[in-house]
Amino acid sequence: MSKVITGATMSLDGYIAGPGESGFEHLFAWYESGDVTFESTHPEIPFTLSETNAAFLHELTDSTGACVVGRHLFDITDGWGGIHPMNVPIVVVTHRVPEQWIAEHPGAPFTFVTEGVKAAVDTAKQLAGEQNVAVNGGTMARQALQAGLIDELWVSIAPVLLGDGTPLIGHFDGAPVVLEDPVVTAGERATHLRYRLR
Amino acid sequence: MSKVITGATMSLDGYIAGPGESGFEHLFAWYESGDVTFESTHPEIPFTLSETNAAFLHELTDSTGACVVGRHLFDITDGWGGIHPMNVPIVVVTHRVPEQWIAEHPGAPFTFVTEGVKAAVDTAKQLAGEQNVAVNGGTMARQALQAGLIDELWVSIAPVLLGDGTPLIGHFDGAPVVLEDPVVTAGERATHLRYRLR
Repeated sequence: MSKVITGATMSLDGYIAGPGESGFEHLFAWYESGDVTFESTHPEIPFTLSETNAAFLHELTDSTGACVVGRHLFDITDGWGGIHPMNVPIVVVTHRVPEQWIAEHPGAPFTFVTEGVKAAVDTAKQLAGEQNVAVNGGTMARQALQAGLIDELWVSIAPVLLGDGTPLIGHFDGAPVVLEDPVVTAGERATHLRYRLR
Repeated sequence: MSKVITGATMSLDGYIAGPGESGFEHLFAWYESGDVTFESTHPEIPFTLSETNAAFLHELTDSTGACVVGRHLFDITDGWGGIHPMNVPIVVVTHRVPEQWIAEHPGAPFTFVTEGVKAAVDTAKQLAGEQNVAVNGGTMARQALQAGLIDELWVSIAPVLLGDGTPLIGHFDGAPVVLEDPVVTAGERATHLRYRLR
């Protein structure tokens, strides 16, 4: 059955971005951790992974049928130029639909939802079919967790302390949330932990 | 050679205590994760661990020759009644020496240092001999990290989201700090990660 997963690569001290959107070269060093080329919709972005990391990333991408992202990430990536690296439909939670961007990217598999994260997850589930829905970390993850929508947390811990920045989840209503013991994959420049919510 | 280690049990979202000193039943569930009794100086505190967790805790305690803690932890534990669970000398970083407590606990292996964390670590190294110095998480870890005193980080990640509380390190000068890939021990109710600083 389709599951709703959230997750991110975070620093050991719990940040998915350092201060002022910094630290990505440390957080995503595992994307350049070896010799295994990973097919991406964006060939200009190098993905050359270790075997362990490539197997993990394949498991993530092969099982994902749609993503839910927030407007902030959509804006800073300019909607990935119209095609997400995971090559799946994207549901963007937003207050205002970006009509001009849509006109400039005809056919891009992007859906804009203005009724909040639950409506976005419902839309993404329909798009994903039997596959999983991936909810982006940060604000989207927090809102989905608070709404009781999350089944699993997939966290890749990068070996770096950033000291400050954007937390994985941040303060949320309904804490504490107890998880099952994780499935552990010891990769290079990332330790991948997959938790089910208890 | 003697190493200076800091670490703690923290939630997946990076807190060593929840709001208002809460969440310890989740953070330290791994202390009651099985049938292996762990010898402690405080027999009233149950330590019944899984085999994996017991082996990890033995590796930690057997290699530790002295601990550095802050005054806050000393106060909330009342100095562990004069004997730390790890049964090693304790160096307390403080602004004022608690003369009355010392008088009430004659012979307790506690040293009070008022010249800051570097002096405390130096004192602890002398007490530890060939064994390691363990610096407590939180404020002490942050100050020691900023002073360049830390060799390794040992972090046990408990499968819980606390949402808020006391961070493992918190904001520090000199970020980012890049670490080597960790030694991973997949325990029950805790994933143990041991990092060397790069």
